[in-house]
Amino acid sequence: MALAKKPVTGMKDILPEEMQIRDYVIGVIKDTYRSFGFTPIDTPCMESIGNLSSKQGGENEKLIFKVLKRGEKLKLETAESEADLVDMGMRYDLTLPLARFYSNNANNLPSPFKALQIGSVWRADRPQRGRYRQFTQCDIDILGEPSDLAEIELILATTTTLGKLGFKNFEIRINERRILKAMAAYSGFSEDAYDEIFITLDKMDKIGLDGVAEELTGAGHAKESVDKYLDLFKIVDNEPDGVKAIGMLADKLGDFLEDEVKQNLVEIIESVEKTKAADFKMVFDPTLVRGMGYYTGTIFEIAIPEFGGSCGGGGRYDKMIGNFTGNNVPACGFSIGFERIILLLMEQGFQIPEQPKKIAYLIEKNYPADKLCEVIGKAQDARKNGQHVLVVRMNKNKKFQKEKLTAEGYEEFEEFFNR
Amino acid sequence: MALAKKPVTGMKDILPEEMQIRDYVIGVIKDTYRSFGFTPIDTPCMESIGNLSSKQGGENEKLIFKVLKRGEKLKLETAESEADLVDMGMRYDLTLPLARFYSNNANNLPSPFKALQIGSVWRADRPQRGRYRQFTQCDIDILGEPSDLAEIELILATTTTLGKLGFKNFEIRINERRILKAMAAYSGFSEDAYDEIFITLDKMDKIGLDGVAEELTGAGHAKESVDKYLDLFKIVDNEPDGVKAIGMLADKLGDFLEDEVKQNLVEIIESVEKTKAADFKMVFDPTLVRGMGYYTGTIFEIAIPEFGGSCGGGGRYDKMIGNFTGNNVPACGFSIGFERIILLLMEQGFQIPEQPKKIAYLIEKNYPADKLCEVIGKAQDARKNGQHVLVVRMNKNKKFQKEKLTAEGYEEFEEFFNR
Repeated sequence: MALAKKPVTGMKDILPEEMQIRDYVIGVIKDTYRSFGFTPIDTPCMESIGNLSSKQGGENEKLIFKVLKRGEKLKLETAESEADLVDMGMRYDLTLPLARFYSNNANNLPSPFKALQIGSVWRADRPQRGRYRQFTQCDIDILGEPSDLAEIELILATTTTLGKLGFKNFEIRINERRILKAMAAYSGFSEDAYDEIFITLDKMDKIGLDGVAEELTGAGHAKESVDKYLDLFKIVDNEPDGVKAIGMLADKLGDFLEDEVKQNLVEIIESVEKTKAADFKMVFDPTLVRGMGYYTGTIFEIAIPEFGGSCGGGGRYDKMIGNFTGNNVPACGFSIGFERIILLLMEQGFQIPEQPKKIAYLIEKNYPADKLCEVIGKAQDARKNGQHVLVVRMNKNKKFQKEKLTAEGYEEFEEFFNR
Repeated sequence: MALAKKPVTGMKDILPEEMQIRDYVIGVIKDTYRSFGFTPIDTPCMESIGNLSSKQGGENEKLIFKVLKRGEKLKLETAESEADLVDMGMRYDLTLPLARFYSNNANNLPSPFKALQIGSVWRADRPQRGRYRQFTQCDIDILGEPSDLAEIELILATTTTLGKLGFKNFEIRINERRILKAMAAYSGFSEDAYDEIFITLDKMDKIGLDGVAEELTGAGHAKESVDKYLDLFKIVDNEPDGVKAIGMLADKLGDFLEDEVKQNLVEIIESVEKTKAADFKMVFDPTLVRGMGYYTGTIFEIAIPEFGGSCGGGGRYDKMIGNFTGNNVPACGFSIGFERIILLLMEQGFQIPEQPKKIAYLIEKNYPADKLCEVIGKAQDARKNGQHVLVVRMNKNKKFQKEKLTAEGYEEFEEFFNR
């Protein structure tokens, strides 16, 4: 049987040019996050199917690649449904595995625990341009820190990293699940409609205020509530100063919003603005929803002007670890949009700074063995001095070979002839 | 339903202490291999089940984690066997994916192509101490180089890496599939028995010469052939000089061994010995077999005295890419035993050299927001200067907190009280 040359549907081979940029970006990410006291961990790429299907993952649970049982455990004859055939699946994110990891290892971890994870995740999404079924996620999380020090450090670490990668003039948009709820309560919506309302609200950037109004009234909500709700957004619509905007909204919401929520958000925005090490702006965005149901407090998102849509995000999820242990642990995380950042850097023709000098030694085909040794010895000395040395046989078309090597970044050539 | 806290069977969580060593080792590996002109690539963790089951993978093909078909493609009612249920599997090594990658992308790759791959592979082995079902492999391969320059560069790159990680006094054992065959032919075994004979020979280090003799005669081979075969091994048994040993064996084998095979091996051993950048020895080992059937020429293995058994190996496989494209491409690779190296370093209490200074700021719980900002600003300045600064709330038991932080490598503490 002929073997398949293409990667499996929806996944991709990564060629050296892209891979070198990926390696560089991962290096910057790891160095920067480590300077904030985050420590790397790793978890298996597979999780038990029970954990993956426990309603923590929202829509992603529909996209799980499932792993067939093996050996005697696979009973094909008596299997009635998919569930009888599988015992594990590929992780669809790094958050659920982190919660499991923490539950399993908390005794051996510091408190608070600042985790850094970089790894592949898999989603059986419909393949489309620029979106793949296997992709890299890059998360930092602080477990065991209830105060907004967690949010401040997460945002500073992430934005410092983006700054080091050359991104400028971007925004961190921030909101709070409790503000979302207070606004819905203030407007008179019933609590069991909140999730549905937030799904509509999440489309604001696409369909605008009128579109949201139409969809909400279309879904049967009272016009009075819808009007009251949308008026709230109009209050802050023209206020670029996040702290002022939160104040104006909080004044309007009155008792519907706890003062602590407002204080927290203000503190985060002010602390980050005063201590940031990159060129970006904190923006209060009451239309920010973030899909995942597990968020309990702050939510935030990176918006890079060159790129429509979010380049990463995160928030507080104080109740997930309790699903494993029975005891809730304060938790807050920020996921940088690794694949989108790579895409942006590639599009911008990103050049890796401070590369070692690359030299190629071209050796004629029938070069004698004893002299070859001398060439290799010379290469070994240059490598010891920090240079990158490629030792290759000279091709028949030497000019073309050197052109290709130049394109790969080789700046200097030495030729060795059998004369 | 309660969620599972443990990782799935046979796979493991990696805690910060180990993960920091893994990251460091990967850094050394990548830097060193890149200095030899190897370029990183990546392939999906899943391959089509057809490729994985194409008899390239030997025994590993029995250990594939298979991925269930999705959506309409899964026809549970009409499925008669496992094969009807799955379309992909997890890769069990990095060599088959590399051959597919090269077949798919050769037009966009330099020739020769020097590939570096580091990634997870999966094998549904029976779980046992120190062996996991998901583990990291780390391969370098040179595709398109027919001469022994490939072997020399692969061995130098791998051994230089081991040297930089502090390994000393180890051995690279080398042999040739064509020597294995010549020895079997010389002894009068029939060609279709070779594979079986090599499987027995592979046990030499466990069962000795007598054990091998017993197993071969037990399998029905002529005593005369078996005696003749074992005498060959006795010729070189006491000769530590690899070049001399090959010469003695070649003299005995006469026309059964092509002169080119001997010349090649001698050239590799001599060139590596003259140009090596680590403390190790090249050893000719005619009992070295290496399991994989795809090897066509040289085979080699790392033997580290502290560790019984192999710490990595590789060889030449000139015919694998032809299975994808119809045209063979010379190929030679070396896989470093990443997991074993990590295990050895952990057991030896390995300390990562040249770490940045780690400082912890402990902040009293009710420290006011405006002053907190100043502490974070101070941390940001120290981070800019290359230090690692952890900003955490002070625990009630501060002494214990500081002890734990000291164990994590924090050397300096600053305390901030609300006074």
